[in-house]
Amino acid sequence: MNDKKKILIAGGDLRQIYCGKYFFKSSNKSERFDIYLAGFDDKYIPENMKKFSGNEIFDFIVFPVLPLKDDIYINTPFSKDKISVDEIKKCMNSNTVLFCGKPDKKFIDFFNENNVCDYMEREELNILNAVPTAEGAVYISIEEMPVTLKNSKILITGFGRIGKALADILKGFGSDVTIMTRSIESRAWAKVMNLKVCEKSDIDSSYNLIFNTAPAMIFDYEMLKKIGSDTILIDLASKPGGVDFKSAGELGVKAIWALGLPGKSAPITAGEIIAETIEGIIKERGDNEYD
Amino acid sequence: MNDKKKILIAGGDLRQIYCGKYFFKSSNKSERFDIYLAGFDDKYIPENMKKFSGNEIFDFIVFPVLPLKDDIYINTPFSKDKISVDEIKKCMNSNTVLFCGKPDKKFIDFFNENNVCDYMEREELNILNAVPTAEGAVYISIEEMPVTLKNSKILITGFGRIGKALADILKGFGSDVTIMTRSIESRAWAKVMNLKVCEKSDIDSSYNLIFNTAPAMIFDYEMLKKIGSDTILIDLASKPGGVDFKSAGELGVKAIWALGLPGKSAPITAGEIIAETIEGIIKERGDNEYD
Amino acid sequence: MNDKKKILIAGGDLRQIYCGKYFFKSSNKSERFDIYLAGFDDKYIPENMKKFSGNEIFDFIVFPVLPLKDDIYINTPFSKDKISVDEIKKCMNSNTVLFCGKPDKKFIDFFNENNVCDYMEREELNILNAVPTAEGAVYISIEEMPVTLKNSKILITGFGRIGKALADILKGFGSDVTIMTRSIESRAWAKVMNLKVCEKSDIDSSYNLIFNTAPAMIFDYEMLKKIGSDTILIDLASKPGGVDFKSAGELGVKAIWALGLPGKSAPITAGEIIAETIEGIIKERGDNEYD
Amino acid sequence: MNDKKKILIAGGDLRQIYCGKYFFKSSNKSERFDIYLAGFDDKYIPENMKKFSGNEIFDFIVFPVLPLKDDIYINTPFSKDKISVDEIKKCMNSNTVLFCGKPDKKFIDFFNENNVCDYMEREELNILNAVPTAEGAVYISIEEMPVTLKNSKILITGFGRIGKALADILKGFGSDVTIMTRSIESRAWAKVMNLKVCEKSDIDSSYNLIFNTAPAMIFDYEMLKKIGSDTILIDLASKPGGVDFKSAGELGVKAIWALGLPGKSAPITAGEIIAETIEGIIKERGDNEYD
Repeated sequence: MNDKKKILIAGGDLRQIYCGKYFFKSSNKSERFDIYLAGFDDKYIPENMKKFSGNEIFDFIVFPVLPLKDDIYINTPFSKDKISVDEIKKCMNSNTVLFCGKPDKKFIDFFNENNVCDYMEREELNILNAVPTAEGAVYISIEEMPVTLKNSKILITGFGRIGKALADILKGFGSDVTIMTRSIESRAWAKVMNLKVCEKSDIDSSYNLIFNTAPAMIFDYEMLKKIGSDTILIDLASKPGGVDFKSAGELGVKAIWALGLPGKSAPITAGEIIAETIEGIIKERGDNEYD
Repeated sequence: MNDKKKILIAGGDLRQIYCGKYFFKSSNKSERFDIYLAGFDDKYIPENMKKFSGNEIFDFIVFPVLPLKDDIYINTPFSKDKISVDEIKKCMNSNTVLFCGKPDKKFIDFFNENNVCDYMEREELNILNAVPTAEGAVYISIEEMPVTLKNSKILITGFGRIGKALADILKGFGSDVTIMTRSIESRAWAKVMNLKVCEKSDIDSSYNLIFNTAPAMIFDYEMLKKIGSDTILIDLASKPGGVDFKSAGELGVKAIWALGLPGKSAPITAGEIIAETIEGIIKERGDNEYD
Repeated sequence: MNDKKKILIAGGDLRQIYCGKYFFKSSNKSERFDIYLAGFDDKYIPENMKKFSGNEIFDFIVFPVLPLKDDIYINTPFSKDKISVDEIKKCMNSNTVLFCGKPDKKFIDFFNENNVCDYMEREELNILNAVPTAEGAVYISIEEMPVTLKNSKILITGFGRIGKALADILKGFGSDVTIMTRSIESRAWAKVMNLKVCEKSDIDSSYNLIFNTAPAMIFDYEMLKKIGSDTILIDLASKPGGVDFKSAGELGVKAIWALGLPGKSAPITAGEIIAETIEGIIKERGDNEYD
Repeated sequence: MNDKKKILIAGGDLRQIYCGKYFFKSSNKSERFDIYLAGFDDKYIPENMKKFSGNEIFDFIVFPVLPLKDDIYINTPFSKDKISVDEIKKCMNSNTVLFCGKPDKKFIDFFNENNVCDYMEREELNILNAVPTAEGAVYISIEEMPVTLKNSKILITGFGRIGKALADILKGFGSDVTIMTRSIESRAWAKVMNLKVCEKSDIDSSYNLIFNTAPAMIFDYEMLKKIGSDTILIDLASKPGGVDFKSAGELGVKAIWALGLPGKSAPITAGEIIAETIEGIIKERGDNEYD
């Protein structure tokens, strides 16, 4: 790996530019990259990166989360011009490795001869993304709550990545945090982390704030009635979520569905996490190559 | 102290109502109070409190922060009707103790025959208020910063009440926190709390975020030039503050002056802190009486 | 489950008595138990427990870790008299459930007609045991180190249960903690927990203290030479451990093998964890029965 | 301050040698020192320091805590030979500044023509020393308690330097910590730090462990009867302490008087704290000189 590898950032928003900046910084330390951008107007292109000309052959191409738009174009919200999938294809050979988030079937079909990695499927990305998600959740809580997080009674349903990251931050605030999880092991971990635990049947109206992180319909009509209208309920679970928002409306429960927090609350960090994950995959591939 | 004491909440906003609610809760435990409200429209009066009729004699009267409006009226933003100082005076005798925040000279003169306590002068109130201030500061930071608090390089200038409370919360986020203080003792405390310390001359452009808590003009033109336009600067010091905002504007430094955070970020908690402080003063007086 | 269940604590040390006490306390809340002790001299029997007479039939029998001694006797270090396996067998029927830790083949054969649960195999027990292990490890560190844990540079190799519990406590001390783990996911978790990460090849002589928690020979002759004789090395991995102690002796590296810490540093807690785990298993069985 | 200053470490134990080593490290960064040792056998003298010959004139001389032995000799436990005060006096001029800990009247009289600083009187030293004291206290607790610090109910009486440092570490263990202090401000701080507070009259037998840090006789016969014999009581207050040990013996309360913890639990850190304090004093003097 003595020569510089060519990497193309193809489309996306601020996050992808910071992804590129991460590669540039990293390039001075270990892996060495030449970084190109496609699908960004000139004003967005940092001085250390090159503009894609269409004549290069790339080792790696990084697409955004949801890489396609209108079926045959790359998703390029920061560009006046469109870039078609075919333009990108011209800059690839059979060794080019593609990275993207949540590709649809069309994308997979277009690039079926190449190695396509969905970085959003990587566990380490989802673990690291739990932090900007948790910080975004804290932001919403401070906004919504008329009391301090300190001394608030807070319930977190689910104790996976987001539940753990969030509980850790809330402990620093001095909140009184309880975890509801069905997993015996997760309950043991919650105790080790000095958190309270409860069962689903224990949930009542005593909480100032509830975060749902479990992708299961826990907060149905009956449960919403139990928690009452003095509790703020923030759903952090991805679709279909864990809250019956229609019933919440009827019952006067203040329920908020917070999606896409990493990109909203910390776009630079979100971009760097994508880059860090891709870098790890590249390293893994290299290690396997020479092991 | 066997009989119930009569306490009047005279004017103010939501905070004062929660102050009253705190007395009510507390009343079931130790001190016993009958709680009256003046200067609030009926819809704001909780069921456990009485409406002031003008015929009671009160043991204690609680005024809001900045108690007067238009010189002779009580500051009553939650009421359609006005209440004059004279109406309140009729419900006092020489033993009535008055509590208020930051009274002006007029207020002092009106009530010069009574014991007037400025609760905003009490150290314990200011210590407890550091928490809602710090939470409000965290809220602004998450809003302004494109990166997570975690791993951010943060400087806090000053290490008094707010600096300490803020540093404690930021440690829970995993921020890299440095304290700038001239006091040798404060530096030792910062080290004990596992924080970095630096001197004024060490401040540079390496910080993602700077909180000023010191009531001194630290961030003048020269210093603002040193920290540069990539740093976000949040001034938490009360007037006159510690930032030359005019120069900040010229130099393109993003500077935010955040005042009155406790009341904004957590009005219930802010009201409870006022109540807790007053309760402490009442207890102290009682202890002295019988000691 | 309306009737009281009969439970026998058969042999073991202080931990088993505290296991029984936990059942007694718990008995007042949910599950209801009559608790008997066998294999303890009278002076050890708490007033709320009964002495085993040989005439009862038990629903549950709890044996210690390593339940047998001399092949046919129960391991009873707190008793002058011996109890044979056959005496216990008389008090069982086919529904009796047996709990023990690390049974050998003989034990399994003796009780092959009954349901035998090895509580030491339960993940939740091992998670909870990580805490007394970590506290015991901290105890040894303070004893051995001529500097404070605060500001010490500490490496933890492995980031499983013990590594996580230990890192969490050391953060509270203000230590500078680095995690060495090969797992990409564990590295992501370590970052989320605000810890540094490194690779095996990065390990050098800069650490004041190293805890090994990985059951793999990481600290062989070459690695011990790298860490040098100024570092204290504490091996918390169960047999065969992760340190070449012979080479450590030759190279003058201070290496300590710390085994069985939960029972040593906190016998009451260790007994309660066994009880808590057994209670969970009993509950699980009950739930399944009626589900 | 361009020339190297001459500093003499005169007597003391390991702490003083580490004090010298700190000056040496520091010497490469800011202040520049030539470091000499007196009162240590040759084998203790590190390679970067010189042996005192009796012919130098020193700018600074550092004596140990309790600097004299047998009235006219320096306290030199690490030396076979004695050094008299007169030998030291020959190496001073009127500008030589002396540092020592807790000098007696004789010492003051001997050196009454020079500037003598008692570093043990400096607040920053006592703040920094709270950390090794707290770590030593944790060590004793783990040794004495049959349960984990996690989940233990712990009372700290007094909330000064040691109380704060100790509470901070115990929070990291997940202990349930209550502070008893008479100061209203300290109570407010304890709440900000997410600790419980109680009054003297609330102390009862519910604590697993009590640390006394207040230099006042709190634990007299009556109080010891209230806390009972199941609680472990560790007195960290310097003489005369806060526990009636005679009554504790009669009542069967396990009470431990832990003195001199910094030097015992972390001699290197204790020495570095002395050096850091002296360095601060020297810097202060220099600043004043040129300001």
